[in-house]
Amino acid sequence: MLNHSLDLMYAALADGSRRTMVDRLSRGPASVKELATPLKMSLPAVLQHLRVLEESGLVRSEKVGRVRTCRLEPEALQAAEQWIADRRAGWVSRLDRLEEFLNGEDR
Amino acid sequence: MLNHSLDLMYAALADGSRRTMVDRLSRGPASVKELATPLKMSLPAVLQHLRVLEESGLVRSEKVGRVRTCRLEPEALQAAEQWIADRRAGWVSRLDRLEEFLNGEDR
Repeated sequence: MLNHSLDLMYAALADGSRRTMVDRLSRGPASVKELATPLKMSLPAVLQHLRVLEESGLVRSEKVGRVRTCRLEPEALQAAEQWIADRRAGWVSRLDRLEEFLNGEDR
Repeated sequence: MLNHSLDLMYAALADGSRRTMVDRLSRGPASVKELATPLKMSLPAVLQHLRVLEESGLVRSEKVGRVRTCRLEPEALQAAEQWIADRRAGWVSRLDRLEEFLNGEDR
């Protein structure tokens, strides 16, 4: 399940337009129209990108009256960040152990 | 350029087999054979995944004699992590400002 959503989250982030949308949402909730403003694409194309972001869990949206407001889901963003951070930490701790070993060899 | 490589890095991470390879490499360099061991797929399929990882910049490999050794590129991993961390930080600092504002209103 988590593995599956990492697939969807990284796939969602692998597109510059969707990252522009996530970047906008990192500064606060926005309407679909606001998300579309910097993107120079049709509204249906924006809605398609929004759907990919929502299916990944990174973004949710709610329609009140005629306006759909989108928000970031920080827990999902954190999961995507954490997976990479953990792998990088593994690499760094390996380098630290290697350094310790080599320093030990010097003595 | 950076935007382009974020595309490639997140696309590379959007696959469970490739994440298994990155996870293995986070514990140290490995041969293609070692990378293939937990994957239950043909060697050509593993090499194809490795190519995607190398083209994204997350992994590099070097052939010495008959053995191709693969390593993680921690700077690339950090760039992929940092983009998400910065968006999440933006969201968190917005919440902090909101809280400050609401606390100010109470007075």
